[in-house]
Amino acid sequence: MSFQPYRSPSTGCPVRAVLFDTFGTVVDWRTGVAREVAAFATAQGVALDAYAFADRWRALYQPAMEAIRSGQRSFTKLDTLHRENLDEALRHHGIKPERVSRQTLAELNKSWHRLPPWPDSVAGLATIRRHYIVGPLSNGNTSLLLDMARNAGLPWDVIIGSDMTRTYKPLPQAYLRTAEFLDLHPGEVMLAAAHNNDLHAAREVGLATAFVARPTEHGPGQVKDLAPEGDWDLAASSVTELADLLGA
Amino acid sequence: MSFQPYRSPSTGCPVRAVLFDTFGTVVDWRTGVAREVAAFATAQGVALDAYAFADRWRALYQPAMEAIRSGQRSFTKLDTLHRENLDEALRHHGIKPERVSRQTLAELNKSWHRLPPWPDSVAGLATIRRHYIVGPLSNGNTSLLLDMARNAGLPWDVIIGSDMTRTYKPLPQAYLRTAEFLDLHPGEVMLAAAHNNDLHAAREVGLATAFVARPTEHGPGQVKDLAPEGDWDLAASSVTELADLLGA
Repeated sequence: MSFQPYRSPSTGCPVRAVLFDTFGTVVDWRTGVAREVAAFATAQGVALDAYAFADRWRALYQPAMEAIRSGQRSFTKLDTLHRENLDEALRHHGIKPERVSRQTLAELNKSWHRLPPWPDSVAGLATIRRHYIVGPLSNGNTSLLLDMARNAGLPWDVIIGSDMTRTYKPLPQAYLRTAEFLDLHPGEVMLAAAHNNDLHAAREVGLATAFVARPTEHGPGQVKDLAPEGDWDLAASSVTELADLLGA
Repeated sequence: MSFQPYRSPSTGCPVRAVLFDTFGTVVDWRTGVAREVAAFATAQGVALDAYAFADRWRALYQPAMEAIRSGQRSFTKLDTLHRENLDEALRHHGIKPERVSRQTLAELNKSWHRLPPWPDSVAGLATIRRHYIVGPLSNGNTSLLLDMARNAGLPWDVIIGSDMTRTYKPLPQAYLRTAEFLDLHPGEVMLAAAHNNDLHAAREVGLATAFVARPTEHGPGQVKDLAPEGDWDLAASSVTELADLLGA
């Protein structure tokens, strides 16, 4: 008997590809970045709160993309935005970026390429992949997502970076151009994400949706995205549970 | 001791990514297409030489892309060109495409998505992947290359289709935009191909080069590309031999 793919109630379509938000949903950016920031601080002989530094660096992410979404700035890849934001985060913590070698800063910026997966991510993706196309649907650029996959062992079938769609989520084209590269109807593509706003934007343009809870993405005191805030097609507490729900 | 990547004599760079021409180099398009054409002919109750049909269909490939390379026609993905060429190949063999259902023709067109790998491809790629980024560098579009990878079990790290570079080999931008998506210097990228003209174009824009002999790509009477016709960095008779030469 051949496999029957999950049919999305919201789109009425069988799901062919399950694409994942990555930062927060598949990998633990806060722990990964804090670890490398702590090593950097030790090497530089400075004292700082590595988690606070990671939170600050990450907080500059949305404003930087917003300049591009709004058309104020032409498309610029995420590695470049992270590098600019790193200077600002360093200054916020009392470190002059001019006094650190360019190579050291370039290395630290690559901490986003080396983020650790959540414990269930690799096994869950491998299971889902048996019956569905799997890939990231992220604001990361291709080389970042590729390094992340090789470092974390993420078994993607395909990587469509934001430098390929040349736009940033949650703009509609980020989702639609991704479906187009896959030659799939938007309703045949499911976005799995730990962020309700990402799922909301994906549903608006006709994708199937799955919430994956990551209640400690922002640390022990996280207050948002603790639960699904829409009637998403599926809701799971891990990628392995999502695999079960998809019948994979 | 950490792995020392192969250093290309022609570029002076260590190779980080080994990218493969696919049709002919990684997969056996002639056998794969002929097999599906033969099944189509049986189902339609017509007699035809399936290998001659495959050769004819493939012969229309370069002229179709040439209209795009020359700027006569805007970028059109390979699936669409194959579909147009199928009509012409059918007519050449005395079959009116109008008399065949659209769905049957769409299915037959997908034979390019289901090509069998050469016997050494999967094992060779898996070995090279341990130490190098591996991916296709093909005129195929992303969804075609993705289906091909899933069907043939090709363990790519990343797929950069021609619909992402929006140009066709052997134009320089096909190679250079691919290196750019990988955030690599062209000299850190090696093209592995069974076609001397592809390698020539890649070397012109600064890529490292490897010839992989496929002396039966065009059938038993093949007369070209039997041997390397340039001083390519490496020359191998299989992808597994290429893995050895790369020290992988």
